[in-house]
Amino acid sequence: MNRYNNSVFNPPILSLKQTLQTGFEEDIGFGDISSAILPDKLIKGEFTAKAAGVISGIDSILLGYQILDETVEVQYMVSDGDRVEPGDCIAKVDGPVRALLTSERVILNILQHMSGIATQTAMAVKALEGSKTRLCDTRKTLPGLRALQKYAVRCGGGYNHRMRLDDGVMIKDNHIAAAGSITKAVQLARKQVGLMVKVEVECETESQVQEAISAGADIIMLDNQTPESAKTLCEMIPDHIITELSGGITPETIGTFKDCGAHYISTGTVTHTVTALDISFVLSGTVKSVAE
Amino acid sequence: MNRYNNSVFNPPILSLKQTLQTGFEEDIGFGDISSAILPDKLIKGEFTAKAAGVISGIDSILLGYQILDETVEVQYMVSDGDRVEPGDCIAKVDGPVRALLTSERVILNILQHMSGIATQTAMAVKALEGSKTRLCDTRKTLPGLRALQKYAVRCGGGYNHRMRLDDGVMIKDNHIAAAGSITKAVQLARKQVGLMVKVEVECETESQVQEAISAGADIIMLDNQTPESAKTLCEMIPDHIITELSGGITPETIGTFKDCGAHYISTGTVTHTVTALDISFVLSGTVKSVAE
Amino acid sequence: MNRYNNSVFNPPILSLKQTLQTGFEEDIGFGDISSAILPDKLIKGEFTAKAAGVISGIDSILLGYQILDETVEVQYMVSDGDRVEPGDCIAKVDGPVRALLTSERVILNILQHMSGIATQTAMAVKALEGSKTRLCDTRKTLPGLRALQKYAVRCGGGYNHRMRLDDGVMIKDNHIAAAGSITKAVQLARKQVGLMVKVEVECETESQVQEAISAGADIIMLDNQTPESAKTLCEMIPDHIITELSGGITPETIGTFKDCGAHYISTGTVTHTVTALDISFVLSGTVKSVAE
Amino acid sequence: MNRYNNSVFNPPILSLKQTLQTGFEEDIGFGDISSAILPDKLIKGEFTAKAAGVISGIDSILLGYQILDETVEVQYMVSDGDRVEPGDCIAKVDGPVRALLTSERVILNILQHMSGIATQTAMAVKALEGSKTRLCDTRKTLPGLRALQKYAVRCGGGYNHRMRLDDGVMIKDNHIAAAGSITKAVQLARKQVGLMVKVEVECETESQVQEAISAGADIIMLDNQTPESAKTLCEMIPDHIITELSGGITPETIGTFKDCGAHYISTGTVTHTVTALDISFVLSGTVKSVAE
Amino acid sequence: MNRYNNSVFNPPILSLKQTLQTGFEEDIGFGDISSAILPDKLIKGEFTAKAAGVISGIDSILLGYQILDETVEVQYMVSDGDRVEPGDCIAKVDGPVRALLTSERVILNILQHMSGIATQTAMAVKALEGSKTRLCDTRKTLPGLRALQKYAVRCGGGYNHRMRLDDGVMIKDNHIAAAGSITKAVQLARKQVGLMVKVEVECETESQVQEAISAGADIIMLDNQTPESAKTLCEMIPDHIITELSGGITPETIGTFKDCGAHYISTGTVTHTVTALDISFVLSGTVKSVAE
Amino acid sequence: MNRYNNSVFNPPILSLKQTLQTGFEEDIGFGDISSAILPDKLIKGEFTAKAAGVISGIDSILLGYQILDETVEVQYMVSDGDRVEPGDCIAKVDGPVRALLTSERVILNILQHMSGIATQTAMAVKALEGSKTRLCDTRKTLPGLRALQKYAVRCGGGYNHRMRLDDGVMIKDNHIAAAGSITKAVQLARKQVGLMVKVEVECETESQVQEAISAGADIIMLDNQTPESAKTLCEMIPDHIITELSGGITPETIGTFKDCGAHYISTGTVTHTVTALDISFVLSGTVKSVAE
Repeated sequence: MNRYNNSVFNPPILSLKQTLQTGFEEDIGFGDISSAILPDKLIKGEFTAKAAGVISGIDSILLGYQILDETVEVQYMVSDGDRVEPGDCIAKVDGPVRALLTSERVILNILQHMSGIATQTAMAVKALEGSKTRLCDTRKTLPGLRALQKYAVRCGGGYNHRMRLDDGVMIKDNHIAAAGSITKAVQLARKQVGLMVKVEVECETESQVQEAISAGADIIMLDNQTPESAKTLCEMIPDHIITELSGGITPETIGTFKDCGAHYISTGTVTHTVTALDISFVLSGTVKSVAE
Repeated sequence: MNRYNNSVFNPPILSLKQTLQTGFEEDIGFGDISSAILPDKLIKGEFTAKAAGVISGIDSILLGYQILDETVEVQYMVSDGDRVEPGDCIAKVDGPVRALLTSERVILNILQHMSGIATQTAMAVKALEGSKTRLCDTRKTLPGLRALQKYAVRCGGGYNHRMRLDDGVMIKDNHIAAAGSITKAVQLARKQVGLMVKVEVECETESQVQEAISAGADIIMLDNQTPESAKTLCEMIPDHIITELSGGITPETIGTFKDCGAHYISTGTVTHTVTALDISFVLSGTVKSVAE
Repeated sequence: MNRYNNSVFNPPILSLKQTLQTGFEEDIGFGDISSAILPDKLIKGEFTAKAAGVISGIDSILLGYQILDETVEVQYMVSDGDRVEPGDCIAKVDGPVRALLTSERVILNILQHMSGIATQTAMAVKALEGSKTRLCDTRKTLPGLRALQKYAVRCGGGYNHRMRLDDGVMIKDNHIAAAGSITKAVQLARKQVGLMVKVEVECETESQVQEAISAGADIIMLDNQTPESAKTLCEMIPDHIITELSGGITPETIGTFKDCGAHYISTGTVTHTVTALDISFVLSGTVKSVAE
Repeated sequence: MNRYNNSVFNPPILSLKQTLQTGFEEDIGFGDISSAILPDKLIKGEFTAKAAGVISGIDSILLGYQILDETVEVQYMVSDGDRVEPGDCIAKVDGPVRALLTSERVILNILQHMSGIATQTAMAVKALEGSKTRLCDTRKTLPGLRALQKYAVRCGGGYNHRMRLDDGVMIKDNHIAAAGSITKAVQLARKQVGLMVKVEVECETESQVQEAISAGADIIMLDNQTPESAKTLCEMIPDHIITELSGGITPETIGTFKDCGAHYISTGTVTHTVTALDISFVLSGTVKSVAE
Repeated sequence: MNRYNNSVFNPPILSLKQTLQTGFEEDIGFGDISSAILPDKLIKGEFTAKAAGVISGIDSILLGYQILDETVEVQYMVSDGDRVEPGDCIAKVDGPVRALLTSERVILNILQHMSGIATQTAMAVKALEGSKTRLCDTRKTLPGLRALQKYAVRCGGGYNHRMRLDDGVMIKDNHIAAAGSITKAVQLARKQVGLMVKVEVECETESQVQEAISAGADIIMLDNQTPESAKTLCEMIPDHIITELSGGITPETIGTFKDCGAHYISTGTVTHTVTALDISFVLSGTVKSVAE
Repeated sequence: MNRYNNSVFNPPILSLKQTLQTGFEEDIGFGDISSAILPDKLIKGEFTAKAAGVISGIDSILLGYQILDETVEVQYMVSDGDRVEPGDCIAKVDGPVRALLTSERVILNILQHMSGIATQTAMAVKALEGSKTRLCDTRKTLPGLRALQKYAVRCGGGYNHRMRLDDGVMIKDNHIAAAGSITKAVQLARKQVGLMVKVEVECETESQVQEAISAGADIIMLDNQTPESAKTLCEMIPDHIITELSGGITPETIGTFKDCGAHYISTGTVTHTVTALDISFVLSGTVKSVAE
């Protein structure tokens, strides 16, 4: 069955399937020669958390087995976005021992990476608790994995910045220099983009912020600020314009920007510098022959 | 021109091209709507290290631009495997400003990730300096990126373990349980695999090691050992059998295993928990129109 | 050379290449058996407009030939977005007669379709001349061709609505029913989406419009209105909220909505009901042998 | 289940699946962010004709849902090739509301385009009623969609000309000029092609027709004729040679060529200038939770 | 340069490129680890025939190197369709030693297979010399390689039967049984297929042949005949109907069917049972460093 | 159901699926126009061996039908690796007549090729019976088919040499010349490759063999030997070094090398010169309508 465990439809099912397919082709090659030692028996196994964290990508378990052996059965014990502690069972599986062992590594590679992102996103989100400031990601993702990485950020309580270069305008120093001024750059952008597109302007100084406000920017990104300068600039900006802090902010330092009054803080580290969440797969239970 | 900067032919050119193509399709979508603000001018730019590290994946610069605009010219200042310091120029580029800005993020995402792997591999390799022990990777890689990640490990001075499931036998507890004993599992494997395949046995105890030696294993992996127990077991094993330490060893703890006498220490962290190397791209030089 | 004729970098080069590749594989199959009758000679040819219209997709000429025969040379006489009259030369080409004839149909199929979209978009845009109202497209595009079709709309002077389902929220009757009210649906959306996403609400009645305004919609779509009712509703809506008219408006009827005061009128017909622009390719000039 | 509704096996199932996959990847991107507002409920819906026409591509409904959610159930009320009137129900579906709404647009884009082709083909076929003349298509199709478009022509009662360049020889003016004469061109072709290939010659004048007959053409295409000249030329041609009228004939003018005695009239408009058939999808029935 | 050596444009360039890409990805994997031993030097090499035969697929040499290293230069000494003797030089190449050695195997695998097909086709064609009977292939080809295999048949002097299931009707026993009779099956087919499609009927007996003639078959395939029975049946069939002998005819037995008067003899062995032509690649000449 | 008939998990399921998909796309094109003559009925059929041999690739039957029509049911009568005699039933199938006939050719093309490889491998293996020498394959495979071809070799009782260029070092004359000596080449290789990689050295003379032994080669390949010289050289080599005979050995001559004492004999002919095993598919049983 192609039904998903999660409470929202948003898990990028097509991307997960494609990534699993790519992972299996890459990892299995012409066949798992170690599995030839194994009997053709049915067995049970469990995916278990070995560290505390937030789960993301759990659908990779069922969707992965479906590619190699449709008879494997999966029972999820948690959902994407759930917090787990060491020892918590994530999913119970039941199927031919060869299929379970051949698939194990690729499924874990995806699940651990996505859960790692969700976990460190959740930590950064927690550092902002009590403020109105939301955490968001960037385009600093790994090729082929952006859909999964951005979904994992959402599982950790974060928000997504631009999906790709076609769904938002970001005016940076080069664009400003080319257009002549912030005002001209915003006008040029507005003249060309449609109704669904927001225009964001990157500013470093008060006068830039002032010009971006006058030019009618939808979003002002304050780059490379201290918490103090960020606060000062945010206070200048009317509330209907969204404010984003960016530039060198890491999960470690994010807490110091908590009270600046920005709507969003963006950080590339949640996707470009990921600590895989420790999850293991262990066979268990009694073995019975497939023919039984 | 399709010639590569590096001193070895090994950079996985086909994988780099495919990964860049995937990255561009994913990131550009239906078009870089911000670039419409820019004039159609030629400009110069530089890729510069902002942190100390080891470079890997430099061919992504030229190969990337070739996909979007064949007129961009690239001059490499370093090669893969070279160490850089903050401020070092990695490459100088020359081409249309729109092509340079649209391509920037994807090229950096690849280059920073691969250089991050090379850098932390080099750190782990350095922790083993003075011993005969080599560092090697695992199959804990990200789907679609294994060729690039394993190449980056080599750039950092590390070695590759199995490429995929078809080029080596790894006998673990489940295989031993299924076969009845280490001896029987090794025999079963030898009966089925060809001349190019080595058989590795995972052991935790002295008696397992003893049996693996007698059974004629090519490689013995010692799992979850302390430095002391690892040393004791390594001394038991004749030198023509390769020894590998594995299990929970990180770049931080690897130095304590330096004098155990193992041939290899494997660690998944060099590929599954990567800190991107900070590299930036900045436009520079005088702008001239394409028509000039 | 991979340089493009157009004055903006926006032509979706990666999509064009992919579409041409798909088109050639589909059309040529195992080989153009009629071309075997032809000598291996060089010849000149011209792409000529046979009807008045707006050109879009001109890069398909050079990019197409590059796939089959890199020696073909192309000289563009017009650019994307340019208006042509019957008899106008669009491009001159020079190359082996077999390559020119084998490629002809696929290049024309793309160029005529994209130029057809640009042409009818330009007609609709002209019908709105003198008003502030912009024309925009919808997601009613053909599978695999969306990037090209949306680019063609821009070439005709139109604007793009959502690129895909991930870059904007559209709240329709089913969402409202599910959430309980417009207000609750907007709140639910805002709680989940990031800083770059706008929220649009589809309304048919005054009370719905009133609620959408209060709920803080970024865009209000007025569905299935007469010019009169559209005007009344638009006047209710403060100018910082974007207004869009939609529902059954065609190039023929669009002029009657010109003075309603809406920011945008969207119509699916510009992409789902396309009249190909008549363009022909004719060989010309003197034939010389390839060896000369 | 992968069984198809239609009474012939010919629907291009592999192409439909590929086109749906492409369409979903293109349209959904990283996820349908509007669907997050919806509950995880089961609901019923209906595809309904809003204009009169001929249906083609109905398998896209079931095959489309199978990609996103295998639990959706579909009950077809008509078959491909059937004529529908406004208000007629085409199919009833039953499944999770999120899956139904996320899939809706892509399925409709395919179904409306194919049914549009079938409908205008049927109109042209009707204009030829009472004569022996059949309608056929051309290679003027959209890249990636040829299999679906040519199938839709068959659903409308039309016939297919060449599938691609490898399954038939078409000798045009350039080939004749290159070979020296029609006779030599036909001889050259016959010398090279196999037993399954027919040779068609394009003629404009009586003397060309005379030469094509003598040369043993299988098919003679009469290009750019008036009804009168077409009739004269057709009468010259013995019945065992197939005759085809071509060149600027549209659904509007085709009736005037009805009594020329040609076996086939080909027109590119049925595939390159398509009016999408108006079909809508509306949710209906009672909503129940998935868990029920 | 993307120009081809051959005297006809028909070599399936797109298929060759795709097949080479597939072959390299499959064979090189994550890198040619043996090539790391080699210096980065330029060298010359030669492709040489080690057995007598007919060459096919020579473009794979240049197109192959272009994928891995664009600087390799190729000089062809023969063309596709040419006959070679042991020791004949096929092509001279010049480039980096690593690129030459890494590419060697895949290029040879394609070139030897295609030349093997051309060679055994030429032998079968020779066995028919002096008669009007042509040799043709079948659909018994290897998945992914049909375009190359059918082209190789043409290089050997053979002809192609159907390219695929969509370009010709073949009425076999099952179709006849289903339709009720040969006559009804032919009528049913004619009613559905277009002007470019021929209808072939498979017959074993005189009465079947008689019915196929009356039914108006374009081609009659005589299955499983002796040379005598084939001759008798061929004499029954008027010359405007094409005759094909088929069923268990091999290159060894084909000569005995030479005087039966059939237009074509088809045999699956030329593509399904291939002896690779022995061709080797040897480095030669003086080595110089790339930097020179 | 996605369960496999075979007693080992090793059949390359992902490759088989991909190859079948490729084969169907290539063979069916836009539709099997002959099948339109057939009724929509259920029928039974059988795959039957027409020659003696060894079966390989039987999963292509079920996996193939699943792509086109999931309702087809398959009952396997033999397993991969089983020996069959003429007339033996391989599998019984049950399903719609159109699906069975449209799929037949592609499934047979794969099954006959793989079984052909298994059969001639088994013959070569039999020629070595009574000796310790194993037969192994080479990299002389067809692009896209290597996984299937190497699996077929295993089904015939053979062994696989290198899977691809990344899983083993092969030092040949060019490498030796470049490195300066066998000793230096082996050292260079060992310095760069990881723990799983074996180093093989190609030798022709006694002194080369002597040097390879001293240099610590894992495998020594003896190229172009007579049975006598091979025996002499094998006796020189200590048993812990694996010996491989290679170069021009065919299934016909292999028996003469049986008593040389080598561990392996490799031959390219088992994959590059294949005689398809004769297998046919015949419809049988009573026809019933699908609606029953």
